[in-house]
Amino acid sequence: MPFVNIKITREGATPDQKKQLIKGATQLLVDVLGKNPATTFVIIDEVETDNWGIGGKSVTEVRAAAKK
Amino acid sequence: MPFVNIKITREGATPDQKKQLIKGATQLLVDVLGKNPATTFVIIDEVETDNWGIGGKSVTEVRAAAKK
Amino acid sequence: MPFVNIKITREGATPDQKKQLIKGATQLLVDVLGKNPATTFVIIDEVETDNWGIGGKSVTEVRAAAKK
Amino acid sequence: MPFVNIKITREGATPDQKKQLIKGATQLLVDVLGKNPATTFVIIDEVETDNWGIGGKSVTEVRAAAKK
Amino acid sequence: MPFVNIKITREGATPDQKKQLIKGATQLLVDVLGKNPATTFVIIDEVETDNWGIGGKSVTEVRAAAKK
Amino acid sequence: MPFVNIKITREGATPDQKKQLIKGATQLLVDVLGKNPATTFVIIDEVETDNWGIGGKSVTEVRAAAKK
Repeated sequence: MPFVNIKITREGATPDQKKQLIKGATQLLVDVLGKNPATTFVIIDEVETDNWGIGGKSVTEVRAAAKK
Repeated sequence: MPFVNIKITREGATPDQKKQLIKGATQLLVDVLGKNPATTFVIIDEVETDNWGIGGKSVTEVRAAAKK
Repeated sequence: MPFVNIKITREGATPDQKKQLIKGATQLLVDVLGKNPATTFVIIDEVETDNWGIGGKSVTEVRAAAKK
Repeated sequence: MPFVNIKITREGATPDQKKQLIKGATQLLVDVLGKNPATTFVIIDEVETDNWGIGGKSVTEVRAAAKK
Repeated sequence: MPFVNIKITREGATPDQKKQLIKGATQLLVDVLGKNPATTFVIIDEVETDNWGIGGKSVTEVRAAAKK
Repeated sequence: MPFVNIKITREGATPDQKKQLIKGATQLLVDVLGKNPATTFVIIDEVETDNWGIGGKSVTEVRAAAKK
């Protein structure tokens, strides 16, 4: 009965991509540990780029700097 | 000083139901472990059905299949 | 299919008390939101008192001050 | 490669304040543990006041009572 | 820069199985969303069976009942 | 009433360093958002290096490669 939480920045992941994440993460637990998919949960959190930091800067800042 | 995080799908929980979850979870910690309610936190996360998976499928898919 | 995470300090909760937390939290989701207990998860995290802070101090410090 | 998650109520934190939280939390890990900022993540979760409870009441209720 | 948290019961996952979980979860984010593996984190939490509940019972109880 | 969760690898952080993390994170919320330290929680999770992955490898592997 595993629980998987995937956090990504909110930058346009589509419903189909989310389905692939859910399917793939569930299959990974089945393949590696023989877990039962029926009781495997996957939760995807999409985080605003203002609210995610790396290297001491928000992803909003990182993305803006990358465009320059 | 317990911390309780309740994750549910975003499917119409009302403010009153959320109050009941907060009150009930806090009381549970008081009853079972004698914790101080004044420093007991409860956080409810409501997750889009596209972003919650079970059995390798999103809850959006599960709900649609159940209606058929 | 709710997910409940209860974080408490590691200060001697017994297996029986943990059973009560699991049972009570699951029942709360059934009672308030009509959730299916069979797919309701509860995870209890016990955190060392050195690793939990409140008011800017570790719980180890808070407990020691309370004994003086 | 630390990971910091800051949960606050959604009550108007500005992008600039979020930048300060990201910068400050990252610097804290550098100062105290010598961690590499380039692989330090900070995620800020802003939680609706209906969804955050303390003392058995939602923050919405707590704020309303404080205004009376 | 995704973050993946996998929670499983502590029931003997080996270091090699953990490596497979880390490798597989990272590859999933690369394949589905084109994320950079260098800044993809995976954290595995192993939870005692007394501390994980499903269906209102601890996994310790569930495992014991299954053996009867 | 903020909640801060700091996840680090378990590689020898001392009780004094943890106190500094708790004090610093609490002060950050006071300074940036004017939060009340009395209801600010900080939880530090120390994660085994086998259980933390970056770049598709466990930190155990990363540390071993760095020593070569």
